Amino acid sequence: MSIVDLEPETRKEAVESAIGVLRQRFGENLVTSQAVREQHGHTTTWLPNEAPDAVLFAESKSDVEEAVRVCATYKVPVIPFGTGTSLEGHVNAPLGGLSIDTSRMNAVVEVHPEDLDCVVQPGITRKQLNAYLRDTGLFFPIDPGADASIGGMCATRASGTNAVRYGTMRDNVIAIEAVMPNGELVKTASRAKKSSAGYDLTRLLIGSEGTLGVITEITLKLYGIPEMIAGGVCSFPDVESACNATIMTIQSGIPVARIELLDTLQVKASNAYSKLSLPEQPALFVEFHGTEGSVTEQSDLFGEIASECGGGTFQWATQAEDRNKLWQARHDAYWASLGLRPGAKGVSTDVCVPISRLAECVEATRADIEENGLIAPIVGHVGDGNFHVLVLTDMDDTDEDARAEGFVERLNWRALDMEGTCTGEHGIGQGKRKYLGRELGEESLSLMRLVKSAVDPYNIMNPGKILA
Amino acid sequence: MSIVDLEPETRKEAVESAIGVLRQRFGENLVTSQAVREQHGHTTTWLPNEAPDAVLFAESKSDVEEAVRVCATYKVPVIPFGTGTSLEGHVNAPLGGLSIDTSRMNAVVEVHPEDLDCVVQPGITRKQLNAYLRDTGLFFPIDPGADASIGGMCATRASGTNAVRYGTMRDNVIAIEAVMPNGELVKTASRAKKSSAGYDLTRLLIGSEGTLGVITEITLKLYGIPEMIAGGVCSFPDVESACNATIMTIQSGIPVARIELLDTLQVKASNAYSKLSLPEQPALFVEFHGTEGSVTEQSDLFGEIASECGGGTFQWATQAEDRNKLWQARHDAYWASLGLRPGAKGVSTDVCVPISRLAECVEATRADIEENGLIAPIVGHVGDGNFHVLVLTDMDDTDEDARAEGFVERLNWRALDMEGTCTGEHGIGQGKRKYLGRELGEESLSLMRLVKSAVDPYNIMNPGKILA
Repeated sequence: MSIVDLEPETRKEAVESAIGVLRQRFGENLVTSQAVREQHGHTTTWLPNEAPDAVLFAESKSDVEEAVRVCATYKVPVIPFGTGTSLEGHVNAPLGGLSIDTSRMNAVVEVHPEDLDCVVQPGITRKQLNAYLRDTGLFFPIDPGADASIGGMCATRASGTNAVRYGTMRDNVIAIEAVMPNGELVKTASRAKKSSAGYDLTRLLIGSEGTLGVITEITLKLYGIPEMIAGGVCSFPDVESACNATIMTIQSGIPVARIELLDTLQVKASNAYSKLSLPEQPALFVEFHGTEGSVTEQSDLFGEIASECGGGTFQWATQAEDRNKLWQARHDAYWASLGLRPGAKGVSTDVCVPISRLAECVEATRADIEENGLIAPIVGHVGDGNFHVLVLTDMDDTDEDARAEGFVERLNWRALDMEGTCTGEHGIGQGKRKYLGRELGEESLSLMRLVKSAVDPYNIMNPGKILA
Repeated sequence: MSIVDLEPETRKEAVESAIGVLRQRFGENLVTSQAVREQHGHTTTWLPNEAPDAVLFAESKSDVEEAVRVCATYKVPVIPFGTGTSLEGHVNAPLGGLSIDTSRMNAVVEVHPEDLDCVVQPGITRKQLNAYLRDTGLFFPIDPGADASIGGMCATRASGTNAVRYGTMRDNVIAIEAVMPNGELVKTASRAKKSSAGYDLTRLLIGSEGTLGVITEITLKLYGIPEMIAGGVCSFPDVESACNATIMTIQSGIPVARIELLDTLQVKASNAYSKLSLPEQPALFVEFHGTEGSVTEQSDLFGEIASECGGGTFQWATQAEDRNKLWQARHDAYWASLGLRPGAKGVSTDVCVPISRLAECVEATRADIEENGLIAPIVGHVGDGNFHVLVLTDMDDTDEDARAEGFVERLNWRALDMEGTCTGEHGIGQGKRKYLGRELGEESLSLMRLVKSAVDPYNIMNPGKILA
């Protein structure tokens, strides 16, 4: 029986019993203060905060195993927590329960430079990992913007600016070790670079958003730091020509490392916030990785394509300093946008469509924003057909709030109508559950439910996420 | 209840009833002749042929849906069939049942050149697909050697010579449509290039070897045909130096498209069969894809590495003709090997280890072959740490047969001891089931069993494969 069907009173008693046992075992590492509990609920968007009943600061995989066993015994929800930077309510505890915070499990366990891989604990953030790796000449490329934990990035199948070249978390995880709802530790794969040995349990866990198990160790692919990195920015008269330049770049097989669209409103915001002086037009930020020869060749080819598509002069950022300024501005797009309307709440949403439909989708979205009198800049990982809209709303204005919600809904239906997905990289969480059935069909949802209830018959693992 | 537990008599009656219904529905497309049934059992290695009771030549997804529904009603096994080129008994019917041959479902449904993707039916072979695509300037790179069907390549998570650059089937399938054991058609993903929408059902089916459903449609990634393709061959004094050159090539970030090891015995065989005149030493066959500039750069870098590692002069095959001769020889390695011992049976097996252990693993394997008086050339997709041994045995010599079996077992344990996998690309089928538990642990096997029995409670989908 799913714990969803328990009476609230029964659930409360179960939680109290479990907390009693956990406190005895974990002492001060188990925290029940209101402030810490709320920090471990959802804090990043307009979804309401639903705090867990207690937070365990786990220090080892055996801590996780023990805690999950206790929760399984008492039928208490378990919500894995990395850095809390997810955007669709993934860490909320709608039925209460135990948040397992993995931030203290942030060690690099092994690095194998010859094999271009490493083994890490789930709580390490991508920046911590890259700082650790710096002396090896290797790096881990996936960059979802936030300094998220690697475990969390696995759970949401994260990607970001350079997925166009290096792929997403799906492509860059070799193996996972996780504690399953029955408390058993499962290893999904060997350390071989590829394998055809049985069901792809690694990919089953990547994107499962904590609903199938708690990830305790990850084997990641690494890459050599490129000999040369170069990039720059190019303005376009409209979104369509910027998208066309993107399509031609991808089709030409140029292995562009990053190709990011900022619409006119985002450019204005970033000019103000990041002290750039870009023309107030849509812009593409691009970056190339490789040897000096190949980077020069890629840049030249891109320059030709951009100019063919009506782009302005390409401003090269050859100095690391200029390049860092540009990409810092891209990473600060969120903060820059907030500057457009101080005091407003920024609601980030993401969709992804086949690249041939990208210009059409972005333009229809821009028109929708304007028709509804909203303030909402658009930025996109356009090489993948993925873009974000940050809606800046006054949460006290219920009319505007309703218009913003209506807009986000239409954005999702629009992406689905164009053979796209309701989320390219944020995940389903609580916020996108209503779109999943239309995207994949009820039969696919049923299949997901079959898998979920086989693995987690009592529904203790992060209940209420992905599946309604 | 699993159909494995049915009495043979009950099973026989069920099959007869199902065949009766299917014959009425499908007429001549349902075949029960002994010859056709045997062709649809396993035919490629030493595993005994176990023919299905009947073969349906399906012509559409609704044919597949109807057939699976009938089999579900009567609890009769369903064995999906592409071209029958799998190597571990995947298409065998140990409990009898219906083989669904998809070779007539070989249409290209859609090509989207702007999105670099296409939608195909499962029975199309990779050569048929690439012939169809030729005029578009696009190609599908995955090449497992045999002219396998795309559906079968999904089912076994196939890869091959250029996986080192383009990835495996895992990385190159965007979405799958499949008929599940309950007869329902499931779509696993939208056509977006990436998505974080729910469990990765696409990857759940890739590598599931027909044990979870019958694949009826596949959306594949495509690539632009490279402006330039160049390659060549380089001999090395020993396997270790060839492996070292491979490791350095990968570490340097050279995007080599193919890097294949042939050991001395394989070189001898290929010299004789394919009229090459290579020194009788281990050799690396390499290929580079890109623009003229990048291919030249890659080739130069590789040349330096090869010479640093003690390699001989690099023989460039700049003409398409010479290159084709070289790669034809690589693809004919199997036939060339058979020429080493006319009349012998060739048993192909594959393992994959972290690349840092590759030289050690290949050398220990070569020593084992010699100690046991076997004839067995080695070829490998060494950029991935994946290699094959083709054991040539006289199947009538029981002593030799036993030595060959013992050798294959030790090869698998050796790969597992080196943190590798018992199969890099062939799959588990019947032949590798005994290694899976040691590779991943009993907890992982239990998890796979949970998933299997949730999706296919009566075990009608390709029973006896992957899980014992």
